[in-house]
Amino acid sequence: MKIGLLIIGNEILEGKISDANTRQLSLFLKQHQLELLTSLTVTDQESTIHLGLKTLFSLCDVVVTSGGLGPTKDDLTKEAIASFLGRKISYSDSSYEVALKNYDRFKRPFAGKEHGYCYLPEGFIALENSTGFAPGLFTEHLGKYLICGPGVPKEFKSLLEDHFVDQVVSKFPPSSDLFESITIRTMKVPEEKIFGEVDTTLWDKLAAFGNVSSLPTTMGVDIGVKIKATDAVDLAEKKKKVLEIFDHSPIKPSIWQIGNLSLEEYIVNLANKKNITYGFAESCTGGLCSHRVTNVSGSSQTFLGSVVSYAESVKHKLLNVETATLKNHGVVSLQTAGEMSSGLSQQLKTQIAVSITGIAGPSGGTAEKPVGTACFGVTNNGKTHTYTAHFPGDREQLKLRFSQAALFYLLEELEKSS
Amino acid sequence: MKIGLLIIGNEILEGKISDANTRQLSLFLKQHQLELLTSLTVTDQESTIHLGLKTLFSLCDVVVTSGGLGPTKDDLTKEAIASFLGRKISYSDSSYEVALKNYDRFKRPFAGKEHGYCYLPEGFIALENSTGFAPGLFTEHLGKYLICGPGVPKEFKSLLEDHFVDQVVSKFPPSSDLFESITIRTMKVPEEKIFGEVDTTLWDKLAAFGNVSSLPTTMGVDIGVKIKATDAVDLAEKKKKVLEIFDHSPIKPSIWQIGNLSLEEYIVNLANKKNITYGFAESCTGGLCSHRVTNVSGSSQTFLGSVVSYAESVKHKLLNVETATLKNHGVVSLQTAGEMSSGLSQQLKTQIAVSITGIAGPSGGTAEKPVGTACFGVTNNGKTHTYTAHFPGDREQLKLRFSQAALFYLLEELEKSS
Repeated sequence: MKIGLLIIGNEILEGKISDANTRQLSLFLKQHQLELLTSLTVTDQESTIHLGLKTLFSLCDVVVTSGGLGPTKDDLTKEAIASFLGRKISYSDSSYEVALKNYDRFKRPFAGKEHGYCYLPEGFIALENSTGFAPGLFTEHLGKYLICGPGVPKEFKSLLEDHFVDQVVSKFPPSSDLFESITIRTMKVPEEKIFGEVDTTLWDKLAAFGNVSSLPTTMGVDIGVKIKATDAVDLAEKKKKVLEIFDHSPIKPSIWQIGNLSLEEYIVNLANKKNITYGFAESCTGGLCSHRVTNVSGSSQTFLGSVVSYAESVKHKLLNVETATLKNHGVVSLQTAGEMSSGLSQQLKTQIAVSITGIAGPSGGTAEKPVGTACFGVTNNGKTHTYTAHFPGDREQLKLRFSQAALFYLLEELEKSS
Repeated sequence: MKIGLLIIGNEILEGKISDANTRQLSLFLKQHQLELLTSLTVTDQESTIHLGLKTLFSLCDVVVTSGGLGPTKDDLTKEAIASFLGRKISYSDSSYEVALKNYDRFKRPFAGKEHGYCYLPEGFIALENSTGFAPGLFTEHLGKYLICGPGVPKEFKSLLEDHFVDQVVSKFPPSSDLFESITIRTMKVPEEKIFGEVDTTLWDKLAAFGNVSSLPTTMGVDIGVKIKATDAVDLAEKKKKVLEIFDHSPIKPSIWQIGNLSLEEYIVNLANKKNITYGFAESCTGGLCSHRVTNVSGSSQTFLGSVVSYAESVKHKLLNVETATLKNHGVVSLQTAGEMSSGLSQQLKTQIAVSITGIAGPSGGTAEKPVGTACFGVTNNGKTHTYTAHFPGDREQLKLRFSQAALFYLLEELEKSS
């Protein structure tokens, strides 16, 4: 089953927002052992929507669209699809009922049968929207299928979850191919070094079991192997062999996870499992470390809190950093970093505390301590170690890299603690 | 000049990452009064890359590609482009020199003339990469242009900045059309209500001056007008008239900005201009408010810091929230929120402090205080007000909505303070 996504929206091609629905559709399809062939973005105009539909119908069995179903005048998807397929739009009782349900769910009054949501191209089904107001659409076209969802990511996702299997997947015979993607996540070794120096035969060895991919990430590389198999036994055997390759590879010490958890999910799980409390003293990361771990449900079990100490006065007042330390060594120094993590640990009574103080730029750098310099303090059970590092990038990238380094330090402490 | 982007990468169609380059290219083009016609994503396979090139060359004068130029075996862009255009790949001295410069810039040794980076399809130019190792590519093809950059967003961006104008824009006569996009940013009124109830003639009035768009955002709607004009005088006149429409519209009280700054940029500018210090006491947002304002360069001028008080002990110890308050009213209560903001303001000596305590879920909700409930405290010059609100969404969306509400409270205080 070849599936293509047509993203309809000026806001994406004008750079106002980034597309989130390609990723959502891909992840949804993966759960159903399906793949996304291609994703095409066009503007909210009849002519470009026609072009998009023509392109995707020539390549795919199933065309999914996102966007342009809303109530404003720049929402043209329904009209453009109808004219592309040569179908008339008219009032539909079933569409009225679907729209009414969507409004009732949010206890909002519905304008009634004149509302655009009640009008449907012939041969289409209106689909309930469990998270918004605009109904989705579904139809068959010359043995192929078209399913249309809203552009708002939350609504697009619920449309997939609520309707895609029933309306689309059920129309195709189940595939006999099985596949599973394994991700091996490494840290601190550049991509070129992994395959060019550390383990030059790794790629070819893995390629015997499926498609190999390499994705550089923040301070690490995710190596992916998409194993194809004929049945569950074959799959399990191939998976075992792939894992054995890594077990014997010189890259092994740099692997921090085999799996698809984010670094923060992995940390929260490990801290909760070992019941180790922790917190951050964040200067240049400005709360990003705390934000990342609290994105994970369950983090409150062991993450106690943080101090974002942007001003020197806050470092002194809340983290007990000595005024003399700030004066003699500077805000970005190993001494300050050490006192920050130690102070946080004492104030919050955490087993582990990690501090970050650095220069995210664009201003504030000096010859001695240029933009990208950061010092880290790691306090574990009262013992403190400090580190210094230097990273490239703009302010946003640096905040992310600093936070990634801090989370890697936290991970190392969690792994060696019991 | 019609410009199309071909994104090459399994990692995007497998949902491992989201595409960031469409947005980067769009924003870059806007600076040069150019527009992106379409964006197409395909997998790292010769056949799909061919399909993508065929599609885009049939629609566009300029094809930009991103991705697949790296050193690993899943990087096939150069080979696929060469076979599509029928060009042979061979060793190139100029390409060697470009690659050498890229490595020298990072003080990294370059493998030498056998490295894949030294090989170039005939008729191509290798382009220096100022932020990474893989050279970019440029060629002409039947009066059209092809420019290829790395997929890593930072490198793709620098390729555009370093080469796009010289290699591509300079080949076309300057356009006589002028356009300018104005964004009017509203808060707290849903899209359908703005155009269906508050100001039913707004859309048509604006449409006389250019393309109108409506983009629902977190707790607000961005109304865009893309004004097209023949010259600078015409543009200025049309812009004035568009702004007058909003000046007389009943939606006016909900407009918080005319412009393209993010909420956090707008807040940092305003706080710095008025020299008002502030900070956050964050519970359920876990540091997100602080992270957002510290993304803005210059925020350290007035943002002093925050306390992320996830555990009750931290609310009590660092924010002076009374144990009795936590016990009698609960962690998510107006009383706790008020003591949090008041405590933060006292501890950090900020003029304004905003606190957030709520339930981001998925667990932790009760019948009385379901997931999505949040209480806010706003302390300004020692005086505290509290608010309660309820939002829909999953954990990630709720953290974002809670932080947005907190930033809107902060903005209101900043606007009425001197």
